[in-house]
Amino acid sequence: MVGHRTDRIMKGEDDMELTGSWTRYSKKIAVIQAGGPTAVLNSSLYGFLKEIVRMDRRTNVIGVHQGLSGLVNGDFFRLDMRQPLDWLKYQPGAVLGSGRMALSDTDLEIGVKQLKKADIHVVVLIGGNGTMWACSRLVSKAQEIGYGLQVIGIPKTVDNDIAGIDHTPGFPSAANFVAHAVRDLSIDLKAMKNFEQVRIIETMGRNVGWLTAASAFFKKQEEDGPHLVYVPEKPFDINEMISAVSDIQARLGYCVVVVSEGLKGESGQPIMMDGINGLKQNAGKKALGGVGSVLREAVSNELGLACRYENLGILQRCASFAVSKLDRIEAMVLGERAAQLIFQGESGCMVGIERLSEQPYSWDIRKIAFDKVAGLERELDSAYTNVTGTIDPSYRQWLSPFMSEAKSYKSLKTLSLLDMEETS
Amino acid sequence: MVGHRTDRIMKGEDDMELTGSWTRYSKKIAVIQAGGPTAVLNSSLYGFLKEIVRMDRRTNVIGVHQGLSGLVNGDFFRLDMRQPLDWLKYQPGAVLGSGRMALSDTDLEIGVKQLKKADIHVVVLIGGNGTMWACSRLVSKAQEIGYGLQVIGIPKTVDNDIAGIDHTPGFPSAANFVAHAVRDLSIDLKAMKNFEQVRIIETMGRNVGWLTAASAFFKKQEEDGPHLVYVPEKPFDINEMISAVSDIQARLGYCVVVVSEGLKGESGQPIMMDGINGLKQNAGKKALGGVGSVLREAVSNELGLACRYENLGILQRCASFAVSKLDRIEAMVLGERAAQLIFQGESGCMVGIERLSEQPYSWDIRKIAFDKVAGLERELDSAYTNVTGTIDPSYRQWLSPFMSEAKSYKSLKTLSLLDMEETS
Repeated sequence: MVGHRTDRIMKGEDDMELTGSWTRYSKKIAVIQAGGPTAVLNSSLYGFLKEIVRMDRRTNVIGVHQGLSGLVNGDFFRLDMRQPLDWLKYQPGAVLGSGRMALSDTDLEIGVKQLKKADIHVVVLIGGNGTMWACSRLVSKAQEIGYGLQVIGIPKTVDNDIAGIDHTPGFPSAANFVAHAVRDLSIDLKAMKNFEQVRIIETMGRNVGWLTAASAFFKKQEEDGPHLVYVPEKPFDINEMISAVSDIQARLGYCVVVVSEGLKGESGQPIMMDGINGLKQNAGKKALGGVGSVLREAVSNELGLACRYENLGILQRCASFAVSKLDRIEAMVLGERAAQLIFQGESGCMVGIERLSEQPYSWDIRKIAFDKVAGLERELDSAYTNVTGTIDPSYRQWLSPFMSEAKSYKSLKTLSLLDMEETS
Repeated sequence: MVGHRTDRIMKGEDDMELTGSWTRYSKKIAVIQAGGPTAVLNSSLYGFLKEIVRMDRRTNVIGVHQGLSGLVNGDFFRLDMRQPLDWLKYQPGAVLGSGRMALSDTDLEIGVKQLKKADIHVVVLIGGNGTMWACSRLVSKAQEIGYGLQVIGIPKTVDNDIAGIDHTPGFPSAANFVAHAVRDLSIDLKAMKNFEQVRIIETMGRNVGWLTAASAFFKKQEEDGPHLVYVPEKPFDINEMISAVSDIQARLGYCVVVVSEGLKGESGQPIMMDGINGLKQNAGKKALGGVGSVLREAVSNELGLACRYENLGILQRCASFAVSKLDRIEAMVLGERAAQLIFQGESGCMVGIERLSEQPYSWDIRKIAFDKVAGLERELDSAYTNVTGTIDPSYRQWLSPFMSEAKSYKSLKTLSLLDMEETS
């Protein structure tokens, strides 16, 4: 499944000599995990640490605690590189501690000063769209201050919203989870349609519909769920949805609807920001989530149907039992490649996955300058999906390498009772 | 893992001659799937059908559509037994169609008349606690009317609330899902504790805490989640919970709470019955669920902490990626055994799993009269769990055969920055 160029990288055959830019600095590298974890965020850290040890085992790796806030607060610790690390490959979460923080210009300046105080000239950040934006600004700030700083980014996000690359680590596992979950929840509802008729399933994905659209991966025919799929790139009209649910339920007896957490109305504002509670007490802390509960109310009130709201929730980014094997490998190799770039003296760029061929799937790693990535948001190709849940064959093909299996569900063949005497 | 007596059954070495009671009747067997599906409900149907074909391939198997309502409505169809059925082993849901229906005495009488009209003298029901109760009443009603009817039950329920057996098929897979999900959601929250501090995770389980308590399977030390576990067997006090959350969050920085959907207050009434919506329009349709949303509000209002509600939802009973292999095997063998009992002329009983030994786990199938089961609800042994999420070693041991792995998560070993010069 993995292309030849990757095999080469994984075997470490493209070692390079340590360049001057590395040896100029002290052998200290700070590493940060930022933003929401994925199922393979630690796999990237594992690949990175393993490669660092292989290239120069005297390196001091400095962990930054709790993401970007740890950078600003100088909350640093040193990793014991003699400990076994294999378990990191398989453990979801963010073992350094992660977090969410929007950096002000002052925060950035303080962050650079904290690095200076600790005599750290190399920083690796594993994060999503916001983190790559922070990377870009960190580079500029260090230049402005005149502090020598190498910055390398490793992408991760279940949303798949980072520009310039084929896909982000974390997305394949999340897509694998969502596709299986929606297939399973659909066949379950079909069995229970006399008791309940509609399921509103909510996925993550922030402002883009990659994950939501992946929910239809196993759909083979019109009768299969999901029957309706709503991505955030298109303005959402609740009345249209209710009318569509009514039609489908009348025809099939049940209806499975998948919605993105990031659905927006005509105004362009998210319909719900209720993912976490405690807003009053935690000013500024908001998270997408909860739109499905609004739709559930509407469906049952307008149509008189029994409706359940299923939020796939945080398992999308952490379910260890639905990890895509390819995702884990790619995440590790990205970590390795980031380590190599550091020793090559590179800075100001992110490593990313490039798809070399579709069938068989093969890939390679390349570097992308932060300014090709920062501030951009990669939307789902509008040709890839439509509201009836029929995904384009090209999107199914694109998703295929991420899936742990590709089994659609079946129905029993039945015979009429009247035929019994003749055929028995 | 599987005991010797089971091997014997699985190899079919205990074939018996067809008894008079079978040959007296026409070769028609009706089969019903009732209640909420499990991940292995169809596995039992598969085992049953395969064994029927093996024992007498001329048998007509009549599917009853949508559970007990199909019995009352005479909604019967004939299965084409020449079709490949292997896929049934792996497919969640209920391929015959299931449903929920409380049978009145009149319904029962109509049901028996429907069977009579179709000349069916054998019925197999795969279902939960309510279904076994219906089985028992069906036997009595047929006797009362004077209609010759064999009734055999096959248990299934994720709740594990059926009396007289070691465990119910469906529970092992659900427990496997819940244990992994709570382990993963806990490590994810630990990584994000600067952003959100509390997760309220809700499990199924109806009135009993088996599934809820299984959430702590991977917990090794006090720091690991879940930190609080509330089962429905004990009256729930929200103020005590809030106080406990506050203490744990102050100590660890975060807190994972697992609650059963069936939590009851001092009054003995469920705190929430909001699993499905559409109550006004669907009188009588209520489902447990939603208590976590109440607790989320309370935690954020009282403690000012950012709190998220994660309902593990319907995936607990249908997630194909978390099926326990043992569960699938046991479900199939129960189906086979039910088929054998029919040909032996047995009636009025359920097949059930008996645990023969703990280490190594071995099991066998035995039959239990409906009147030892009907109307009873098997509660969680109160010694098995406590509110701090520390499960008793005996309960962990009991759960072990159901789990697809047994890996607890780890933390990184770190060193002080001050030690850097000396140790590097």
